[in-house]
Amino acid sequence: MIKITFPDGSVKEYREGISSLEIAEQISPKLAKEVYAATVNNEVEDLTRPIATDSVLKLHKWDDEPARHAFWHSSAHLMAEALESLYPGIKFGIGPAIENGFYYDVDPGDGKVIAETDLSAIESRMKELASSNEAYIRKEVTKQEALDYFSRKGDEYKLELIKELEDGTITLYTQGKFTDLCRGPHLPSTEPIKAIKLLSVAGAYWRGNEKNKMLTRIYGITYPKQKMLDDYLVFLEEARRRDHRRIGKELELFTFSPKVGMGLPLWMPKGAELRQNLINFMTRVLRKRGYQIVATPHIGGVNLYKTSGHFEKYGKDSFQPISTPQEGEQFMLKPMNCPHHCEIFNAIPHSYKDLPLKMAEFGTVYRYEQSGELHGLTRVRSFTQDDAHHFCRPDQLKEEFKSIIDLVQYIFRAVSFTDFTAQISLRDPDNREKYIGTDENWEKAEKAIIEAAAEKNLETTVVPGEAAFYGPKLDFMVKDAIGRKWQLGTIQVDYNMPERFDLTYNGSDNQKHRPIMIHRAIFGSLERFIAVLIENTAGKFPLWLAPDKAVVLPISEKFNDYATKVLEFLNNSDICTLIDDRSEKIGKKIRDNELKRIPYLLIIGEKETENGTVAVRKQGEGDKGSMKLEEFAGFIASEIAREIE
Amino acid sequence: MIKITFPDGSVKEYREGISSLEIAEQISPKLAKEVYAATVNNEVEDLTRPIATDSVLKLHKWDDEPARHAFWHSSAHLMAEALESLYPGIKFGIGPAIENGFYYDVDPGDGKVIAETDLSAIESRMKELASSNEAYIRKEVTKQEALDYFSRKGDEYKLELIKELEDGTITLYTQGKFTDLCRGPHLPSTEPIKAIKLLSVAGAYWRGNEKNKMLTRIYGITYPKQKMLDDYLVFLEEARRRDHRRIGKELELFTFSPKVGMGLPLWMPKGAELRQNLINFMTRVLRKRGYQIVATPHIGGVNLYKTSGHFEKYGKDSFQPISTPQEGEQFMLKPMNCPHHCEIFNAIPHSYKDLPLKMAEFGTVYRYEQSGELHGLTRVRSFTQDDAHHFCRPDQLKEEFKSIIDLVQYIFRAVSFTDFTAQISLRDPDNREKYIGTDENWEKAEKAIIEAAAEKNLETTVVPGEAAFYGPKLDFMVKDAIGRKWQLGTIQVDYNMPERFDLTYNGSDNQKHRPIMIHRAIFGSLERFIAVLIENTAGKFPLWLAPDKAVVLPISEKFNDYATKVLEFLNNSDICTLIDDRSEKIGKKIRDNELKRIPYLLIIGEKETENGTVAVRKQGEGDKGSMKLEEFAGFIASEIAREIE
Repeated sequence: MIKITFPDGSVKEYREGISSLEIAEQISPKLAKEVYAATVNNEVEDLTRPIATDSVLKLHKWDDEPARHAFWHSSAHLMAEALESLYPGIKFGIGPAIENGFYYDVDPGDGKVIAETDLSAIESRMKELASSNEAYIRKEVTKQEALDYFSRKGDEYKLELIKELEDGTITLYTQGKFTDLCRGPHLPSTEPIKAIKLLSVAGAYWRGNEKNKMLTRIYGITYPKQKMLDDYLVFLEEARRRDHRRIGKELELFTFSPKVGMGLPLWMPKGAELRQNLINFMTRVLRKRGYQIVATPHIGGVNLYKTSGHFEKYGKDSFQPISTPQEGEQFMLKPMNCPHHCEIFNAIPHSYKDLPLKMAEFGTVYRYEQSGELHGLTRVRSFTQDDAHHFCRPDQLKEEFKSIIDLVQYIFRAVSFTDFTAQISLRDPDNREKYIGTDENWEKAEKAIIEAAAEKNLETTVVPGEAAFYGPKLDFMVKDAIGRKWQLGTIQVDYNMPERFDLTYNGSDNQKHRPIMIHRAIFGSLERFIAVLIENTAGKFPLWLAPDKAVVLPISEKFNDYATKVLEFLNNSDICTLIDDRSEKIGKKIRDNELKRIPYLLIIGEKETENGTVAVRKQGEGDKGSMKLEEFAGFIASEIAREIE
Repeated sequence: MIKITFPDGSVKEYREGISSLEIAEQISPKLAKEVYAATVNNEVEDLTRPIATDSVLKLHKWDDEPARHAFWHSSAHLMAEALESLYPGIKFGIGPAIENGFYYDVDPGDGKVIAETDLSAIESRMKELASSNEAYIRKEVTKQEALDYFSRKGDEYKLELIKELEDGTITLYTQGKFTDLCRGPHLPSTEPIKAIKLLSVAGAYWRGNEKNKMLTRIYGITYPKQKMLDDYLVFLEEARRRDHRRIGKELELFTFSPKVGMGLPLWMPKGAELRQNLINFMTRVLRKRGYQIVATPHIGGVNLYKTSGHFEKYGKDSFQPISTPQEGEQFMLKPMNCPHHCEIFNAIPHSYKDLPLKMAEFGTVYRYEQSGELHGLTRVRSFTQDDAHHFCRPDQLKEEFKSIIDLVQYIFRAVSFTDFTAQISLRDPDNREKYIGTDENWEKAEKAIIEAAAEKNLETTVVPGEAAFYGPKLDFMVKDAIGRKWQLGTIQVDYNMPERFDLTYNGSDNQKHRPIMIHRAIFGSLERFIAVLIENTAGKFPLWLAPDKAVVLPISEKFNDYATKVLEFLNNSDICTLIDDRSEKIGKKIRDNELKRIPYLLIIGEKETENGTVAVRKQGEGDKGSMKLEEFAGFIASEIAREIE
């Protein structure tokens, strides 16, 4: 008999060689139908693998990532089986599970093409095969056996992969007539794969190298229930509708130019306005909270980054240093703002009475991302952080954390992110030598963070071992309108930079002391934050953020003069307003401008011109009655105040 | 007899070989005392040189640059003579006239030092020598004679210079016992040099190369009248008092860090606030005038600059391109904003009805200046332009120029630059092939600029041949509080970029047309503009620009609570306010804060605390009476509105 320990700490005895699936069945047949993989002694395994010794067991239902991983990985094999039956001689690259679903890179053979239009036939074959309830059978083989098998099959991609593997670690998985080189784990059988959708086809170079052959990548997703798939497809459609790249183009917010370079957004007028609204809002908030705002150049001498340690970190895979006509003089595109802020701190002496000194900047940094990893505004090569550094005394750490948590909560409320959680990352208590700073300081800092979070009623998880080597941190995760999670906001204690830049302040004892530095960003990157905002609001920004607040729509050309006066009055009142004086029917003008997501439409006809009013229509909500110009201006101001005060 | 033509066109006959000085004497003995050099047939010469043929003659009085140049160049020789008599064996490098005065680089010999404390003795000797009325005697020599002379004298610096000269072009000038290698021209004698001041001593590498020996550079200035020297020294003291580097440090506006790099200003909180006040002000003005503000990255791909032509222009003597891990992919620090703006223009199609499209950006550009040429904020390596481009139709050119001139006049008024002139730079009519764009377009554009300037009552000079190859331009020169002139503001027509970037719009004829691009900047560079502002105001900024508007000064600690309330009230009303709650006497607090140039001091005592008021004191003007808090906030708002509305 062997002893099995469950997550709740309970221990049961089972016969040696029992499988996780059998254990699940003994607990309840219903449970057995709901589990897709198991973690046995920290190793994720097939449910059908026999357990030989005393073990710690966790059974994975759908909500656990390893369950979905096994489900989708098995689905990739199922798709491969379907493809092989439909395209004899097809060759296979790699076919992993991904965050949502799976893909397989395949080579259908010279002259053969698999297109979007072929996907439904492949889907049908997958459904046929799945319903025949084929078992996934694991087999350990020698390297030679593996090579022999794929040589016979004539699949050069698999052969290339096998050659890099170590003998004794190789397994094959077979379901039905299809055998794949695979580490697993997989489902017991194809039976749970009830709902199948192949999503798209793309080109992908073999092993991501553009010198290699272009393979066909087929994306798909599967679920144990049709309802789950239907929900996902609705979500996907909603995500597509909200895609910030699509909306950004439609609303003329930003663009990219191949000449300027990939991943370098050009903010068009409306996007620049939106971005500036965010900056102005944040600036006002920061100033009221005692931050001092600085501005630093986008480059710095290499010696700055040798001092900070960034020079080593941003090596050959980064933007390379900028040489000058002067020998030995080199600059780097700024990868971080903190070194510049340390130099500003060092420009004048500081007393303990001056601390905390909170230095903020909308600081632009540059990171070289691989071109394949660039994505709209969420992965770019140049982005502007709402960066700030609190230089403080050790005794101020908790108060500083509380004030930053408070600020984060305030900002999230202003942009309607009400659903968020936070993670506290602490030192690994078993590896204290990995971290810089004294034990005493670490204990104080960790205690300060935990207490600050508790006092601010923050919903947190605490994860030991996740701290940076230079200090513990607190990260915020926000859930958007369609349930996606985004990491926004980070607060990090840093014992490292103050050492490297020899930062000091004069204590009340008239001695030099080392301040602690807290790095913190709330938006993180303005670019990414705006992407999240666009996707969260589908481009219907809150009034205070909207680049244009209103558009004036004269019913006919007769009213253009008065409409222009309205336009000028509002713009002079700092309410960004447009006019649509095309000779189109008013119905069409309303529809066109609703599509532009302008918050207020001001209809101008005979009555309005006579009375000096505007007929106010709220985007998506309709008629709001008639207002005098001053009244409308006051209304807009009070609406904005309501949103952000 | 020879014919001499004077600047007024009149012609007189004189005997062959007459000198300019003799001609001046014949006109009037008074004139002869007032002239210091002459331009004979476009060549500036000694007044004493004989004129052999019919010539065009201009006699130069003090106000002409060539007069001052000859005066100061002769003074440099006078100083050299004095030095040689005081420091036998001293060797001489170069000793030119400069914009204000002259210098000489000298090598006093091993172990000998000339220090600031030695200057008055040298000055005295110069006065002695000058009063003995020595003539400056010009002598043409062969290269060998020159080499022989300085070999005998043992001056290796002069020998090095002579070796690079062509035989037949070499002249020596002698006054008293001193002979120098020199091209001239010089005064007839030392007699007019009445007022002498040696200003400073500095180190300077021979020929500016740090591998060479460090010589001693002595700066001096001379005038024909003591009163002129006295005025200059007052001016110099005033300029020193206003030096933006000194005030920038004193008011903690900006700093430089050797690690970040020379010429890369770090804006400290107060300076960043000042800079942002300028940006906010300009942004508001631009938006009201229909500008669309964009934001672009500080780098661009080399292909962008190959398209624009900047790649060739910014070559080996510039910041070098930034390589990436991707072969063939390179970026450049942005030397200009226009290529990025062209790409934004090209992102969407344009109709003739959309023009003029006025695209503005506070765009940061990078230029590699030699370290020796860097100077505070006026010569930096990274600066932010208030850059804008008007994309317009040819028929809109004049209106656009008028609107920009109007804007420049408005902005200059807001920053109290009331004394300015403008220069219109046109094509060289004799070299039309040097310019791109059609004759017709050039004629139209030049006419448009001239008419626009006239209609806006601008005081202009028109200079043919000074246009850029890509179009004519209009530049503004501003006179500051102590009479110095600064070039601020430029408007340039550009026919080149629209071609290079293939910019088009759809005309009313439904055909593609090429827009004209106007580049314009008003501040020019924010950095340089702020330097000029600091020097113009001596740090006493107008209220709207001042980083802090007020400081609260409690008379004693008893009133700190109310003082803090005042502080919070004002900051919440967006009036940047400080507090000085040190336990110092109120007199000292007032003095200290006056030195910080904070516009309003708010004294808080018993009466103010009881009545909820502040006792208002204006910086440099004293008591302004008592005000309620709301009243003071309203007063500040109306003062700012008065300044900039």
